[in-house]
Amino acid sequence: MASNDIPDIVISRLPVYLRALERLAQEDHEVTSSHELGKRLGISSAQIRKDLSHFGGFGKQGTGYKIAYLREQLRQVLKVEREWQVALIGAGDLGSAVARYRGFAERGFHITHVFDSSTEKIGRSLGTYRIQPIDQAPRILVEEEIRIAMIAVPAEYAQGVAEMLIAAGVRAILNYAPINLNVPPEVHVQYIDPVLHLQRMTYYLT
Amino acid sequence: MASNDIPDIVISRLPVYLRALERLAQEDHEVTSSHELGKRLGISSAQIRKDLSHFGGFGKQGTGYKIAYLREQLRQVLKVEREWQVALIGAGDLGSAVARYRGFAERGFHITHVFDSSTEKIGRSLGTYRIQPIDQAPRILVEEEIRIAMIAVPAEYAQGVAEMLIAAGVRAILNYAPINLNVPPEVHVQYIDPVLHLQRMTYYLT
Repeated sequence: MASNDIPDIVISRLPVYLRALERLAQEDHEVTSSHELGKRLGISSAQIRKDLSHFGGFGKQGTGYKIAYLREQLRQVLKVEREWQVALIGAGDLGSAVARYRGFAERGFHITHVFDSSTEKIGRSLGTYRIQPIDQAPRILVEEEIRIAMIAVPAEYAQGVAEMLIAAGVRAILNYAPINLNVPPEVHVQYIDPVLHLQRMTYYLT
Repeated sequence: MASNDIPDIVISRLPVYLRALERLAQEDHEVTSSHELGKRLGISSAQIRKDLSHFGGFGKQGTGYKIAYLREQLRQVLKVEREWQVALIGAGDLGSAVARYRGFAERGFHITHVFDSSTEKIGRSLGTYRIQPIDQAPRILVEEEIRIAMIAVPAEYAQGVAEMLIAAGVRAILNYAPINLNVPPEVHVQYIDPVLHLQRMTYYLT
């Protein structure tokens, strides 16, 4: 079902649809429509129908989408019907906040390792985690076949950490360090820098 | 200089350019080029030149950009040469992490108020903040002319909180609650949901 021909911009919207469907299911809805989804998401219903048609179409014209079915299909397309192991690099202020955020595990992303380079931090507990030395990350990531990592180190170390992760088989990086990473095309990077989001809004403030 | 005719997609890239320029300045560079910026950011140099040309062009062909000047111009365009007050709604796990993140104040966004509805939390300290009752938010936001707020409440309360904020004059919302908000066109919303970023990457993992 998944195909490499699907534009990335379409893929980027699927998690948003999935989140809305999970919300609708929580609210005990059983059926929805591209109109209802569009209204909730501020996306045109035509766009939603077009996006979903890339995957063969999940609903019949006029009868709407069965939420449980569409949700399950999207979870399979996005490969989030399974549980994923995630490594976290950096146990400073930002890394600690990330490690304590419960939203990851609730949605199938389990932080199984936290690494740091500081001898003061190594061996300490961070929530339910024990902080491990970053030197051991390459071996552990390979052994446990961990493909997803989050970077929460200072900007100047982020590129080096990314290269270590990639050499150890990581193919998806969520980067909290406020810097762009150079990675080969087979590696996917997403960025979380809330200040960038604030700065693009202040432009519009008068 | 700023004009409403600039596409939002261009505006969305300006903070990324600004961040790269600040990094270059930290590394003691004085001049850069669209090629160097493009290489750092994974954006074509043609795109960068085109984006910056919306604002009258900041460099001369062939001589590159003076970093200090371009940085200052971008800060003015984005209105981040000033300091902004920000209200934070929600002092749970997520709100606490947001309140403790130092990156906001370092880049001119000062959380000046933290509001919550829980009688257990009101009056308590959160880092350097004292948690205030959410009932007082409308009055305080109006009095202090706060235009920016961050929402870190459970999903089911986020829309109601957004409506209260908008009625009190807030025009830019950074929403950490995992739900889409319906807001009038004069209000800008940006979303932070790291799980969505992970989910759009797992699609590509094999």
